[in-house]
Amino acid sequence: MARLRRRAGTAQYLEEHNHIVIQQPSEHKGRWAKLFGNDHQIHVELGMGKGEFVTQMSARHPHINFIGIDMYDELLRKACEKAVELDTRNLRLVLHNIAELTTIFAADEVDRFYLNFSDPWPKKRHAARRLTHPRFMKQYIEILGEKGDIHLRTDSRSLFEFSLNTFADMDLKMRNISLDLHGDGTPEDHIFTEYESKFVEQGMNIHSCEVLIGKW
Amino acid sequence: MARLRRRAGTAQYLEEHNHIVIQQPSEHKGRWAKLFGNDHQIHVELGMGKGEFVTQMSARHPHINFIGIDMYDELLRKACEKAVELDTRNLRLVLHNIAELTTIFAADEVDRFYLNFSDPWPKKRHAARRLTHPRFMKQYIEILGEKGDIHLRTDSRSLFEFSLNTFADMDLKMRNISLDLHGDGTPEDHIFTEYESKFVEQGMNIHSCEVLIGKW
Repeated sequence: MARLRRRAGTAQYLEEHNHIVIQQPSEHKGRWAKLFGNDHQIHVELGMGKGEFVTQMSARHPHINFIGIDMYDELLRKACEKAVELDTRNLRLVLHNIAELTTIFAADEVDRFYLNFSDPWPKKRHAARRLTHPRFMKQYIEILGEKGDIHLRTDSRSLFEFSLNTFADMDLKMRNISLDLHGDGTPEDHIFTEYESKFVEQGMNIHSCEVLIGKW
Repeated sequence: MARLRRRAGTAQYLEEHNHIVIQQPSEHKGRWAKLFGNDHQIHVELGMGKGEFVTQMSARHPHINFIGIDMYDELLRKACEKAVELDTRNLRLVLHNIAELTTIFAADEVDRFYLNFSDPWPKKRHAARRLTHPRFMKQYIEILGEKGDIHLRTDSRSLFEFSLNTFADMDLKMRNISLDLHGDGTPEDHIFTEYESKFVEQGMNIHSCEVLIGKW
């Protein structure tokens, strides 16, 4: 994550926008549908950064509920400002540690997780911090429950290789593996994240993959 | 495949070495163990080229039986010359079309297939010629039978991506996926093919993957 300048009043801003920024997410465990007021699918971006992807997605797909999660209040503020600008009603933002995901989501409560350009943690001794490490995957699988999927996108070859091997070792179904997502032209309806536009401009390959959980 | 100069007397050379070059391989279907005179594992390289890999492997692993297959007699001659030089007893060479593999191998007769730097056939309309296309995979699976594996190594990102998706779509178990085989140092006991040494020198990535068939 690029460093963010700390701005005054962020805590207050987030409180003032508590219709978007959920202050006590664990209170909604098992009840997110109620919070959204409908039974639409719930798609969650883990590590949303400044929220470019999840805010655009929520604007483009009004019949899907989106939740963006990150650990830094300044990022939540950036994402919240975008959400306000786009006036989306189907997006909530949560400040939370992804290692503690089961404290805020019940089994079978989420339909899709997005992992976009997660920190690759290239050093071997940091492998357990990678968001596709089995300790994270086990949480996702529980929360996706009977049917769901995980969409992974990264510029990092090492993280992608690690992820494919984790998925394979866990005998998970993979689909739509790409080693160069923009190689044959950018897919239709594609939403770029902040990182991605920059990487593609620099000629770097984007890797992507979907993992199917449960009954497909 | 780089073009090979046609040399005089190749047919005769191959006939004279019929203890290595098997003239009528379909006669040995279901009886390769008998030909080798033991019940050791049988590992087959599909598209062995000049045979650098399969001859070196056979010299290094005397308790595994190796079969190298290719479609061009000049390649078989090159490989045979190497085998003669190394004086390996556990290697046979076969001139055969890989699309017709079940005419020479019975179900459950082979333990491992090697696919090293196969032609990537990058054009979409040639996809069915790629050696990891489902029409080929179905043959390998039948011949590997109750337990076996496939080792794929390629410099071609597009072939590797195609292969991973084929394996995933066929719900096959993958292991040891690498997007840069020599990135963290060349694996121990690694045998380079002719192509590979050149590619690695040029700084190209080698991709590799194992596919587990049957009961593991």
